Amino acid sequence: MMIKMGNEKKLVEAITSMEVDFAQWYTDVVKKAELITYSSVKGCMIIKPAGYAIWELIQQQLDFMFKETGVENVYMPMFIPESLLNKEKDHVEGFAPEVAWVTHGGLNPLQERLCVRPTSETLFCDFYKNDIQSYRDLPKVYNQWCSVVRWEKETRPFLRSREFLWQEGHTAHATAEDAEERTIQMLNVYADFCENVLAIPVIKGRKTEKEKFAGAEATYTIEALMHDGKALQSGTSHNFGDGFAKAFEIQYTDKDNSLKYVHQTSWGMSTRIIGAIIMVHGDDSGLVLPPKVAPVQIMIIPIQQKKEGVLEKASELKRRLSSFRVKMDDTDKSPGWKFSEQEMRGIPIRIEIGPKDIELNKCVMVRRDTGEKIEVSLDQIEDKATELLAQIQKDMLDRAKKHVATHTYDAADYLEFEKTINEKPGFIKALWCGEQSCEEEIKEKTGATSRCMPFDQGLVSGKCVCCGKPAKKMVYWGRAY
Amino acid sequence: MMIKMGNEKKLVEAITSMEVDFAQWYTDVVKKAELITYSSVKGCMIIKPAGYAIWELIQQQLDFMFKETGVENVYMPMFIPESLLNKEKDHVEGFAPEVAWVTHGGLNPLQERLCVRPTSETLFCDFYKNDIQSYRDLPKVYNQWCSVVRWEKETRPFLRSREFLWQEGHTAHATAEDAEERTIQMLNVYADFCENVLAIPVIKGRKTEKEKFAGAEATYTIEALMHDGKALQSGTSHNFGDGFAKAFEIQYTDKDNSLKYVHQTSWGMSTRIIGAIIMVHGDDSGLVLPPKVAPVQIMIIPIQQKKEGVLEKASELKRRLSSFRVKMDDTDKSPGWKFSEQEMRGIPIRIEIGPKDIELNKCVMVRRDTGEKIEVSLDQIEDKATELLAQIQKDMLDRAKKHVATHTYDAADYLEFEKTINEKPGFIKALWCGEQSCEEEIKEKTGATSRCMPFDQGLVSGKCVCCGKPAKKMVYWGRAY
Repeated sequence: MMIKMGNEKKLVEAITSMEVDFAQWYTDVVKKAELITYSSVKGCMIIKPAGYAIWELIQQQLDFMFKETGVENVYMPMFIPESLLNKEKDHVEGFAPEVAWVTHGGLNPLQERLCVRPTSETLFCDFYKNDIQSYRDLPKVYNQWCSVVRWEKETRPFLRSREFLWQEGHTAHATAEDAEERTIQMLNVYADFCENVLAIPVIKGRKTEKEKFAGAEATYTIEALMHDGKALQSGTSHNFGDGFAKAFEIQYTDKDNSLKYVHQTSWGMSTRIIGAIIMVHGDDSGLVLPPKVAPVQIMIIPIQQKKEGVLEKASELKRRLSSFRVKMDDTDKSPGWKFSEQEMRGIPIRIEIGPKDIELNKCVMVRRDTGEKIEVSLDQIEDKATELLAQIQKDMLDRAKKHVATHTYDAADYLEFEKTINEKPGFIKALWCGEQSCEEEIKEKTGATSRCMPFDQGLVSGKCVCCGKPAKKMVYWGRAY
Repeated sequence: MMIKMGNEKKLVEAITSMEVDFAQWYTDVVKKAELITYSSVKGCMIIKPAGYAIWELIQQQLDFMFKETGVENVYMPMFIPESLLNKEKDHVEGFAPEVAWVTHGGLNPLQERLCVRPTSETLFCDFYKNDIQSYRDLPKVYNQWCSVVRWEKETRPFLRSREFLWQEGHTAHATAEDAEERTIQMLNVYADFCENVLAIPVIKGRKTEKEKFAGAEATYTIEALMHDGKALQSGTSHNFGDGFAKAFEIQYTDKDNSLKYVHQTSWGMSTRIIGAIIMVHGDDSGLVLPPKVAPVQIMIIPIQQKKEGVLEKASELKRRLSSFRVKMDDTDKSPGWKFSEQEMRGIPIRIEIGPKDIELNKCVMVRRDTGEKIEVSLDQIEDKATELLAQIQKDMLDRAKKHVATHTYDAADYLEFEKTINEKPGFIKALWCGEQSCEEEIKEKTGATSRCMPFDQGLVSGKCVCCGKPAKKMVYWGRAY
């Protein structure tokens, strides 16, 4: 009798090694860890339970951090009338080419077509225009969790898809200073979140004019470095000044009874960040999840589970560890299969417990990140699990920091830049004159883009890496997702 | 100097009394409690912070109850290709007339148009078709939280809008029995949630053939009674049998190696339920929120707050009550205004504290639901707040139950039915022969629809309230939202 073993079968086919083909490794992991699957809708993905549970943990923790800073959640319509999208010139130019258009409602054509939101600045502006009247109504610090649509031509799971999930914060302030302060505050929230929750170190900085958001006065970004040396923009925060306010006529009456335009910001982080978790921490056995966003933190795998007392003891451990996200795998698969699955899914700790362990009143805890096996007395499992999860979280950040440090290079001139980008993938720190033409030349010749002008500029003294003229800024460059 | 006082101004205009015009009262409350506002997108609403915070509390608690029964969350694309929507005949007939169609992506027309999901049975089926292979893959108990679009002609905040937020669960099972069991299980989750969290009693039952969901074998519903005597369908759970499985070819290999169709269910609850909270509990001063879904449970209002020590003491109370959702209103509005606002927003408890109270080491707690004022020693505020919130939650359910009991009528024949529906709005329990023609006749003549055939049928003996032929079912009838 042949029964197809759904889960076991797929693990027989090993995933591609990262060193052989990083892109294929990524696709293999995303599918075999069952994070997503493709749908019948071209360019849109289905986020499966193992993937969505990571997003839920991201949402919970990021939302908590938002609310600590006074953010309130709202929900705006998913449609934007064409006339509304068209109100801010730079913004519409940036987004119109990649939106999906609704032209019919039921059986009838619409009088005005509606785009499915690619981002909601225009909707928030239209709302604030009526909702803000007095200085007493400011600031407005609103956010929404939703999905957005951008009609991308080439798509990759999490990194670029036609529909993705995100949060978008949209704020309005009385002064330019207040808006700038909120813009930086939220960038810092993202950076803290990445470091402390996702164990991903980031470079904080400002985007160049060329790379900034359509309609923004300034765009700030956090940039992370993936295992393959490519950069990933992981969160952005925009200061709009009063540009949108003027386009949408959003004014308030100040204390002195004068009418003033508000100053606005927006900031977002998306499911793209799950791609960063995979590409920063993963290895050739699959996902490696930081404990704080691991849907399952501990997997208990009974050994020789048919022997008397084994399942009972394993269940007892599960009960005792119930303050963690813990599961037990008591299916009839072999322990080896169960180990592979737990590794593929990136579960931080595996607990092995069999008849011999029980006899000696111990179990074995195995770290997913290092493979280290630790014998633990059954009297101490709660304390040891707490300690180990904290240690894994810390070590993952330390390793990722080290990776950034050892993959960040200086380039004094163009030849060095070119040699570095081709031979040693990573961030390149190089000086820049500030001219867009140099930025474009570098991109065209090397495929590297300016990632950001880091807040930490150091002493900017020397020549532009491209044209040799006096430099104005130090820039992080890199090939990027 | 005239400064427009955003919040104060609106409360000057009293809301319409429920008895005078219930529909207008509803609209007034929804707007003045700042739950929603209208958007530039016809038929779509903007859910403001006070409204969205209620939805977040609903989500958290309902999602927790789901997960206790083994539900896993996922995310499906928001678009459905036309060919996919067309696969199940009854389903497409039910939904095609009211969907929004995307015809262009960016600057190009699409090869096949996509509808924005009105519900996602077809997407889940398309997914399950590939994801389910063996009996080991069953059951699948998936759910998603998302927005859906139905191109309604007439819309009302929360009750009927072109876009709304909801959860939709979609499950697949090995047998018909398993599917039926899950269908009823989720209906019970909804009913428990309404009673225990929202303080809304519901009638559980089965929809008639005429009223069931497009494509379902059986639809079960929970029906709530609003203050004005109209019914609101508050959650539904559908058993699809193997109808969708046959249309989408969703088969699994059973233990005996034979191929079998799965049996499916779906179940949903939406932001519509916020309309029920408003219309079951509200009064002429505004919202009355059950403590379990009140974004703010306690509002502390200092009296004569400029007097020495008042704000300090009020802040101290706030700190001591921080295990509740507590706020303090120390703006420069008058206490009277603050009371009105707290009442309008439905905050369950108001604490008044002024110089005289402090002198006597007490404060006054005022119940929003009854207006009762209770003097509480400052030494006991934590215990008293706990006790009072529990009491309010319980009393609100009891009052709502009493309202259902006193507004549920029996009708033995058509004349009694007609007289009752016109003079005493509420549920009418009346016998039915089971013929759709009678259902249609009643609807046409009285505006009442069959709400459900309650699980608790009692002894069905007598004549159909419409045609006088022998009855087969006892039915709850009513005019409905």
